[in-house]
Amino acid sequence: MRIFHSDVHRRHAPQRELSGGEFMAAVETPERVETILAALQAASIGSLEAPETFGEKPMAAVHTRAYLDFLKTAHQDWRREYPDQDALPLIWPMRGLRQRLPASIDGRLGYYSADAGTPITAGSWDAACGGVDIALSATRAVLAGERVSYGLCRPPGHHAAADLMCGYCFLNNAAIAAQWARDQGAERVAVLDVDYHHGNGTQDIFYARDDVLFVSIHADPDQEYPYFLGFADEAGEGRGKGFNLNLPLPWGTSWPDYAGALDQAVARIEGYRPDILIVSFGADTFKEDPISRFTLETLDFAKMGAAIAQLGLPTVVLQEGGYAVEALGTNVVSFLTGVAGDE
Amino acid sequence: MRIFHSDVHRRHAPQRELSGGEFMAAVETPERVETILAALQAASIGSLEAPETFGEKPMAAVHTRAYLDFLKTAHQDWRREYPDQDALPLIWPMRGLRQRLPASIDGRLGYYSADAGTPITAGSWDAACGGVDIALSATRAVLAGERVSYGLCRPPGHHAAADLMCGYCFLNNAAIAAQWARDQGAERVAVLDVDYHHGNGTQDIFYARDDVLFVSIHADPDQEYPYFLGFADEAGEGRGKGFNLNLPLPWGTSWPDYAGALDQAVARIEGYRPDILIVSFGADTFKEDPISRFTLETLDFAKMGAAIAQLGLPTVVLQEGGYAVEALGTNVVSFLTGVAGDE
Repeated sequence: MRIFHSDVHRRHAPQRELSGGEFMAAVETPERVETILAALQAASIGSLEAPETFGEKPMAAVHTRAYLDFLKTAHQDWRREYPDQDALPLIWPMRGLRQRLPASIDGRLGYYSADAGTPITAGSWDAACGGVDIALSATRAVLAGERVSYGLCRPPGHHAAADLMCGYCFLNNAAIAAQWARDQGAERVAVLDVDYHHGNGTQDIFYARDDVLFVSIHADPDQEYPYFLGFADEAGEGRGKGFNLNLPLPWGTSWPDYAGALDQAVARIEGYRPDILIVSFGADTFKEDPISRFTLETLDFAKMGAAIAQLGLPTVVLQEGGYAVEALGTNVVSFLTGVAGDE
Repeated sequence: MRIFHSDVHRRHAPQRELSGGEFMAAVETPERVETILAALQAASIGSLEAPETFGEKPMAAVHTRAYLDFLKTAHQDWRREYPDQDALPLIWPMRGLRQRLPASIDGRLGYYSADAGTPITAGSWDAACGGVDIALSATRAVLAGERVSYGLCRPPGHHAAADLMCGYCFLNNAAIAAQWARDQGAERVAVLDVDYHHGNGTQDIFYARDDVLFVSIHADPDQEYPYFLGFADEAGEGRGKGFNLNLPLPWGTSWPDYAGALDQAVARIEGYRPDILIVSFGADTFKEDPISRFTLETLDFAKMGAAIAQLGLPTVVLQEGGYAVEALGTNVVSFLTGVAGDE
């Protein structure tokens, strides 16, 4: 298995995030990558490689140009107003307010975000670009014949929409990879999102399309972030009708119920006959995850991987969430071992 | 001049608010009312009276029933999840997310708010109801023949829309008063908003109506909160076309330019020939206001009041913002002296 990673992610190291009405220490930290890397090296399950550079064009195929330009300069603009803090939005153009981009950085931050939990630091843009390079390198490896590749992306991407950051995500690694695979000639791309949280950004980006199937297993949005997308009745629209499948599960879900949803997900992907499968993998379904409420065990991730491997598809695994840092590396290795199968 | 106030506002005493990416001590505090009351008593410009109780019906004529029910129980629901903090939303249903009310309190808070700077405390609902009673008591006094009345409302109200809290506001005192005046038989009501910030809630509530004119002088939303409403091109819609007038002014505005905008505002109100005028008065246009950037002086408020008095209309003044606590009482007295004229 070819594994792609880099150090650029370290430039994005927010100190704290808003949660439950107060700041808590950030859970989406550089240590997440370090622990995964250490476990991958110890397990010797693949070659560790540096990513290639792909530039902004693949990003611009998914995100708006205005959003990319905003991300690039947001921290700089913010620091002129607020020299001491990471950039955090304060107000959002909700019902009755205009979808009009204001001049001030506070207003622009609100316009291009959906939550108050995604701080922009001095190095966030560089780190996010690095995550995209990793995702595309892993995708290129599979398009070149590798059965399974893994992109150790950080920051994660699946909450980011075409012009919206949220949920620790700025650029949607999986969506950019899926679109890039299409542009390289793949006719049908499936994205399977098994992060604990619904991949609202990925769903939204492909919601009206039938050339990218989106299937997601996640915590019920009635109970859990992102709250406003990820319900079972969201099946796609227009040409995309029938090409979006959400399988929300309640707090407390353990492997037997998860496995049932995974069977449905795998069956739908099999029926779609994609040329390539991109997996948004979050280990935050783990029982000890500090911000999540499923109860999967380390060995369940191997079973999850094995169920996906049975599809026999060229498969790109991209890292999304997972915040139980101590077990994170082990859980990732468990999953990848399952996906790799008898390789 | 009849002046209405009560102590119920004290039950809403948030400790801190989010601003510039960090928590700062709340600026919308109970001390604001204490300093205004002390100045009013010292100046002997009117009788201080307790408000009557009006119940929820006048609120429900402006706000949705679901929003009122949410406000009533939000803090209780929040405390079950987060025992130690005031309630603060985290995520908002932005572009691409569904306008669907989720079950969880985090989700419902985001659904019914537009910013992260409006904490709900245990007593916020009671305090907000008290503010409405004060506004309606002041309105009743004027409908009963008083030329000028003053309602010392707190929390403020003009940012609150039909089903949206934000900008320290939960219930829109001025909008509820305007609607109630209509329901009592006033045919045309004018609302003049001279708070530093645009009264987005009041505008939104009456935007499609010609029976309530909304005129506002405020900081340019390209530069200032609420960023997404309050631009000069917002003139009303449908029957309301021509009955909304925004006069945004840039950071640094001092009296001469403010006076020019006020002349326009007064002329528009005069042309409308309303039966009653409701003034959303914020003293945050003051040069020393800690969160604002106009440069009015204490005596300018008297001139502002005098210009409004020239309309000769039955006038209800309702307190909105103003956070330079030391000068707040003096500034309010200056304004009210101007509005009262030779009374």
